[in-house]
Amino acid sequence: MSSGGAMIGEIAGIQPGTIFANRRELYDAGVHRTLQAGIVGTERTGAESVVLSGGYVDDEDQGYEVIYTGRGGRDQKTGRQVADQEFEGQNAALVVSRREGLPVRVVRGAGHDGPNTPERGFRYDGLYWVEDHWRERGRDGFFVCRYRLVDRASRNEEYPVNKQEPAPRRLSTILRIVRDTGMSKQVKALHKHRCQICGEALETGTGPYAEGAHIRPLGNPHNGPDEAANLLCLCPNHHVLFDYGRFQINDDFSLLGLAGKLRTAPGHNPAAAHLAYRRRMWGFDEQTVSSRAASR
Amino acid sequence: MSSGGAMIGEIAGIQPGTIFANRRELYDAGVHRTLQAGIVGTERTGAESVVLSGGYVDDEDQGYEVIYTGRGGRDQKTGRQVADQEFEGQNAALVVSRREGLPVRVVRGAGHDGPNTPERGFRYDGLYWVEDHWRERGRDGFFVCRYRLVDRASRNEEYPVNKQEPAPRRLSTILRIVRDTGMSKQVKALHKHRCQICGEALETGTGPYAEGAHIRPLGNPHNGPDEAANLLCLCPNHHVLFDYGRFQINDDFSLLGLAGKLRTAPGHNPAAAHLAYRRRMWGFDEQTVSSRAASR
Repeated sequence: MSSGGAMIGEIAGIQPGTIFANRRELYDAGVHRTLQAGIVGTERTGAESVVLSGGYVDDEDQGYEVIYTGRGGRDQKTGRQVADQEFEGQNAALVVSRREGLPVRVVRGAGHDGPNTPERGFRYDGLYWVEDHWRERGRDGFFVCRYRLVDRASRNEEYPVNKQEPAPRRLSTILRIVRDTGMSKQVKALHKHRCQICGEALETGTGPYAEGAHIRPLGNPHNGPDEAANLLCLCPNHHVLFDYGRFQINDDFSLLGLAGKLRTAPGHNPAAAHLAYRRRMWGFDEQTVSSRAASR
Repeated sequence: MSSGGAMIGEIAGIQPGTIFANRRELYDAGVHRTLQAGIVGTERTGAESVVLSGGYVDDEDQGYEVIYTGRGGRDQKTGRQVADQEFEGQNAALVVSRREGLPVRVVRGAGHDGPNTPERGFRYDGLYWVEDHWRERGRDGFFVCRYRLVDRASRNEEYPVNKQEPAPRRLSTILRIVRDTGMSKQVKALHKHRCQICGEALETGTGPYAEGAHIRPLGNPHNGPDEAANLLCLCPNHHVLFDYGRFQINDDFSLLGLAGKLRTAPGHNPAAAHLAYRRRMWGFDEQTVSSRAASR
């Protein structure tokens, strides 16, 4: 898939598992087309590739799933975070990859700290999806951009091959997966499938449709519980906006980022602790919330 | 997972591949809790199970994917369709399974015609998802309800086990998968991510979000092409409504089922042939469209 000069997807002839001696070899093969930065990509095209090469204290690598930290704000000597990261430039490129469902090449270097670190050089490890992104305080106390990258191979999806010819006809990528639990079914019923933001219940013609959205996400690294107090009933549009951090919810159910207030239903009480976790996920810690609230 | 008396999901202790001598044994094991009908389920709870036992001339079985025909309207002697089917009762139950992301047990009988037919009796073949539903003219000329059932095992998803205890914490089902192609990216750009129904572009905070919707669906049995003329740019809410057949589009871009008209963008021309295919998928053939148009 070629798009505006970007090389998105696999590079023809290069199998996952291929080892490269150094950054120059990676560059020449087209796998990671820069010699310094960890991310290749732009806000316009999305990200091509990332290199996991250690250094970011906030990265977490489980192999099939990587919690990746954005670039910027780091002291070159100590490697510590000394300033906030923003979703700009290459950090924004990874958000575009998520929004457009584009795959990202992942490379692990020998300097990386994880269960899948190669003994030497750099190993191309195939295509990953950006399934989630957020911005929270890192261990050094500054805001960092974070991403959940998930191995496409572990999902048995087709791999697009990067050629200079049109993409195969059946090629598709996954833009969005909406997961549901028994608990979300209950919460949706309490709200009669009405969105807690806009109040609409999507009438499909054979019953109303809504989605359960976990406030503190399930799974690593958030590990939120699947309980009613951690769920919202949202229409697909507001679910997308919630997933992308477009709005947050204060403890009194007023909204940050959108007008209005969270709608409630008898028997359903979203927990303040989960709402606070979500705000922190998106860089609104207690101090920030107070100061922003004061400036409204 | 137990919900209002319905037994949704796997039956504890019964592995996919288990053979049952007859419908009575299936019934007693709880796998398919009726002796006659092909579908067990209600509009309230969703479907529990379906039996593929031949007879429906419109069924198509590819193993991992089944195009299943609803019940009703069939002559008991000849097995031919003699009246229209509606999304009511058990036929509606399968729509609820889709809408709520619930798994359905699939059983194949020896009378069934397909590559996976058991030599004798009935074989429980595990859990499937209802990934799509529509209503079109069957081979006998009457409307039939149709469903695409997809094998969950082929997707490597967890299987929920039907026990009388709470579901495991991490249990989730897939409610909705949005797939994207290189072509849909282009169509979304032509529309600047504005929905062709409501005109809104969802602003995520890091760029606009929209989804590409194929008019004539990709894949079996529709086999629509991945081309711009077969795509719409929709917001998630209108994509769900489109998927559920809530509205159709006439050749002049007026809408059936919703007020308004399809929005256009220079360089993007949805093809009349694909729009007509979609209307037929939902039971609006040429005659129906004319008569409904006349009655508006």
